[in-house]
Amino acid sequence: MSDTPAQAPSDRTRVVRYNWLARYDRQTVEAILDATPLAHVGCMMNGVPFVTPTFFWREGDRVYWHGSTAGRMFKALESQDICLTVSLLDGLMLARSAYNFNCNFRSVMVVGRARLISDAEEKREKLRTFVNSLIPGQWERLRPAHDKEITATAIAWLPLDEASCKLRSGPPEDDDEDYAFPAWAGVIPIRYQVLPPEADPRNTAGIEMPADVSRFTLG
Amino acid sequence: MSDTPAQAPSDRTRVVRYNWLARYDRQTVEAILDATPLAHVGCMMNGVPFVTPTFFWREGDRVYWHGSTAGRMFKALESQDICLTVSLLDGLMLARSAYNFNCNFRSVMVVGRARLISDAEEKREKLRTFVNSLIPGQWERLRPAHDKEITATAIAWLPLDEASCKLRSGPPEDDDEDYAFPAWAGVIPIRYQVLPPEADPRNTAGIEMPADVSRFTLG
Repeated sequence: MSDTPAQAPSDRTRVVRYNWLARYDRQTVEAILDATPLAHVGCMMNGVPFVTPTFFWREGDRVYWHGSTAGRMFKALESQDICLTVSLLDGLMLARSAYNFNCNFRSVMVVGRARLISDAEEKREKLRTFVNSLIPGQWERLRPAHDKEITATAIAWLPLDEASCKLRSGPPEDDDEDYAFPAWAGVIPIRYQVLPPEADPRNTAGIEMPADVSRFTLG
Repeated sequence: MSDTPAQAPSDRTRVVRYNWLARYDRQTVEAILDATPLAHVGCMMNGVPFVTPTFFWREGDRVYWHGSTAGRMFKALESQDICLTVSLLDGLMLARSAYNFNCNFRSVMVVGRARLISDAEEKREKLRTFVNSLIPGQWERLRPAHDKEITATAIAWLPLDEASCKLRSGPPEDDDEDYAFPAWAGVIPIRYQVLPPEADPRNTAGIEMPADVSRFTLG
């Protein structure tokens, strides 16, 4: 832990609270983004900053997500700056005081103006990357996408220009005078657990689970 | 699965996309909220609908969260409607087409105008409820909260009047004509795993882990 705050890429991405937990380097940003496919997108719709959970994926210095071209979010997002947040809860941090109760976590916030992909072939290629980023080779095993499915799918992306991280790990941090207080302190680790895949009862006879499906991990 | 959409409590909480996955009954809302302490709050700050991950807890028909009285969010949230979203990723749902690729999940969105608690004793009582909702009896084992800590802590709440759920479970759903396509389909279940607690190396000699700490579960 350093007491010197890192340099933020912009004023609005500068972490203010607990700024010693902040990081802005691309390596840390990418490592957190690559640890989970779940993001929460904040987008103003009907006067409310709605938070929508969604799959996302990263390619180079961009994050992508998809949905329906008829969806409210994809109609709203090109006219405003938005925020995409990715967070992983890594544990409860039980300190000796309630004030220092916290969690171990990793989070990234990306803000900026999203762009939509309009070209059908580019959309198809992005969806292939998304599917294969979760399960390598999966796209090629699937029934090929129909043109109307590509048309019905909206894909948005944000550059990682304005990204900030906040993360914490390790044992509790208590006030100096509290270490003598006789409360048990420690960490309850939490992580995603991937259970063995369950085959669809309607699978065609004799079909085998691809090895890449059984190798899926998260976290 | 029913094709009849349930009745939303308000226009802006009505689920539009995949509305057959929507639920609005309080029992489902509460069950999802009670399954995790992690929420994402959407709040407009500096022209961006920032999404902030935070601990939250439920008491009756309200959700609460806390932070610093000096924090940006708590200064901003009484002047606008906001959104608090809770989501759990329960698995990847591998269909026979990329278009029907989805996840099993549970999510709740609560929208409305948040209120701040100003009374110190009420704040103290709410924090006690929060800590004890995670680890029963933990508040009483901790170093008692200082008045200045209570002053520095902001607590906000939202009523559950405008809450909507969206959830999915079970095997993939493919287009009728795709079931004969020879792609392996199924579900990769995902859940939170709680690992054995790790004691702080600086714990006072002879102190034992409370049984309630080892009983913590999630999901």
